[in-house]
Amino acid sequence: MTAITEQTYQHILFEQDGAIAYVTMNRPAKRNALSVAHMQELLACFQAIGAERTVAAVILRGNGPVFSAGHDLGEMIGQSREFYEHEFALCSELMETIVGLPQPVIAEVHGIATAAGCQLVASCDLAVAAEEARFATPGVKIGLFCSTPMVALSRAVGRKKAMEMLLTGEFISAEEAREFGLINRVVPAGELAAATRALAEKIAAASPLVVGIGKAAFYRQAELPLHDAYAYASEVMTGNAQLEDAQEGMCAFLEKRQPEWRGK
Amino acid sequence: MTAITEQTYQHILFEQDGAIAYVTMNRPAKRNALSVAHMQELLACFQAIGAERTVAAVILRGNGPVFSAGHDLGEMIGQSREFYEHEFALCSELMETIVGLPQPVIAEVHGIATAAGCQLVASCDLAVAAEEARFATPGVKIGLFCSTPMVALSRAVGRKKAMEMLLTGEFISAEEAREFGLINRVVPAGELAAATRALAEKIAAASPLVVGIGKAAFYRQAELPLHDAYAYASEVMTGNAQLEDAQEGMCAFLEKRQPEWRGK
Amino acid sequence: MTAITEQTYQHILFEQDGAIAYVTMNRPAKRNALSVAHMQELLACFQAIGAERTVAAVILRGNGPVFSAGHDLGEMIGQSREFYEHEFALCSELMETIVGLPQPVIAEVHGIATAAGCQLVASCDLAVAAEEARFATPGVKIGLFCSTPMVALSRAVGRKKAMEMLLTGEFISAEEAREFGLINRVVPAGELAAATRALAEKIAAASPLVVGIGKAAFYRQAELPLHDAYAYASEVMTGNAQLEDAQEGMCAFLEKRQPEWRGK
Repeated sequence: MTAITEQTYQHILFEQDGAIAYVTMNRPAKRNALSVAHMQELLACFQAIGAERTVAAVILRGNGPVFSAGHDLGEMIGQSREFYEHEFALCSELMETIVGLPQPVIAEVHGIATAAGCQLVASCDLAVAAEEARFATPGVKIGLFCSTPMVALSRAVGRKKAMEMLLTGEFISAEEAREFGLINRVVPAGELAAATRALAEKIAAASPLVVGIGKAAFYRQAELPLHDAYAYASEVMTGNAQLEDAQEGMCAFLEKRQPEWRGK
Repeated sequence: MTAITEQTYQHILFEQDGAIAYVTMNRPAKRNALSVAHMQELLACFQAIGAERTVAAVILRGNGPVFSAGHDLGEMIGQSREFYEHEFALCSELMETIVGLPQPVIAEVHGIATAAGCQLVASCDLAVAAEEARFATPGVKIGLFCSTPMVALSRAVGRKKAMEMLLTGEFISAEEAREFGLINRVVPAGELAAATRALAEKIAAASPLVVGIGKAAFYRQAELPLHDAYAYASEVMTGNAQLEDAQEGMCAFLEKRQPEWRGK
Repeated sequence: MTAITEQTYQHILFEQDGAIAYVTMNRPAKRNALSVAHMQELLACFQAIGAERTVAAVILRGNGPVFSAGHDLGEMIGQSREFYEHEFALCSELMETIVGLPQPVIAEVHGIATAAGCQLVASCDLAVAAEEARFATPGVKIGLFCSTPMVALSRAVGRKKAMEMLLTGEFISAEEAREFGLINRVVPAGELAAATRALAEKIAAASPLVVGIGKAAFYRQAELPLHDAYAYASEVMTGNAQLEDAQEGMCAFLEKRQPEWRGK
């Protein structure tokens, strides 16, 4: 994993344990606020992971009491149009990179996730939260509506609930987040790391090549009308079925043995 | 508020209390049925509110036992193609005006909301219901499928649930409506007005300029593919961040004081 | 019903009881796997039903312990690109035919529904499940991601939940399926047939002509932006209101009597 480990990060930590990569936001004193420098490192790290075939799944987490408090207001006041343009373009590129990553990304949410921090959770493919975690898009309270966070939020959560979060800025609990569709599982804080890891390992047991094909197809077909979605997905499945990993997987299933993935 | 109060309404009541406007359907003997004349008044009233900067949030409610029973069947039988065209165009314009209004609109649902009455609830940004409220799209039972109501319903509620309501015409309870995404909150009837008001006041505490930007962006980005949605939302946030209200809001937050909105 | 009953089926059973048609997958020893021949019969049967005006609603069910285990792996190994292309095109045509059928289709799910079997459930307009029923899209485990099933799944179920099913391949219970939007109702196994029948009869009490108009409009408007959806749905309602069945339905309602549908 030269490409990733050679890189030195100031605001994040990168670790790989087997086929699972951990990206850890590491600005605890700043509540993991997403400064431009922090987002640049996250983006670079996810881009490196995307090119790294030994990583089968990624866990995104945060050090300190907070998952992420969103953009770093300390650097956002009195800036030029160019600064804001760059900041939000960078933030959007980071979120789209997570969605476009071949490997599934799981948010491991131990604490508060607000604004762009909540957007990170919504942008991950899956999310596991501790019972204490809470979620909000409170930009409306400081005159800066969470318009980029809502792109991800409104694709995970129903409209009335998303609108309530956006218009009131109030927190929802982990259990509400699960009920509304933002979170997959809620567990006691002491079980969070293990539960997230278990989910990642389940994914990592599959062929990463096939998972990458399926993840990309999921987000693309979601934006197509039904007929176009089927035409596209049928083509994807035809290609997938011809792969060695599919042939091996089907044979192993019929022979009641574990498949051996070759990544082709 | 000259524009609104000078207008005399026959079928609705308009009141403003601070920054909160109340639009009250007032045909109790007709179960607040949406006759053409009634819809024209609702449309005119919402259009006037949209131009009125002293209104920060709107509550839509109904007098009498029923929230709204939908179109007024008494005037719908044996009419010409032109009548129906005008009626449904007017109804759609009313619903789209609510969605397009700069101010958030909250439905305060105390009783039954059926057909276009249910569509009104679905079209509002938020909805609070009394425990006794019930919701249905029963047009199928009278040979007139709720095809315009389903535009709003199916954007708030999942497909299988929306289809069940549309195909059976049966009522769902307020609690089911909350679970399915049609309603934000369910409260005892005696607390309905206060709970809706409290929600409206929470919204009214924010900068109305910023809320209007966010609401418009919400519905527009929801119809775009992810990449286009981010490009659009990034532009919206860049513009928003440069507003005085955003600069003031961020400063006030960092200085731990209440912001003062100037509406620019 | 000449067109349907003249046809001899090997893998399915067709029955009609009043206005309700039953399509029963009948390969119990093969867990109702969707072989090419099986899918061809289902497609032909649904196409015949679509042309049959005496059928007002359809129930899709399966014989044996399993609802349907999805594609028939026994015939899928080592095939040519042409085979896979044909298989997935046929499967997609079957699913789109169910969605495009004028009559509502209700899945009656008594047991396991996996992969394309789960897709069948998602593709039906409504679904009733026994408490024992379970649902999964486990293709990822055998190297063949459920990319065509996810087209239907992701239109019924929120993104995070759909992704969890697709990435882990794990079963969800009938109750979870109901909570996530895949299923309308969960009942004890002993009540499944009666509950599904009751739902079908409720639909069959309406004008089949009007139900067909509404069902088609539902799926079409769902793919349009809001303004276009309203323009389209207003046109649909204008046409619907002029039908004899609508005039009769509205009159019957006001006269407090049962309507008599004439299908025009």
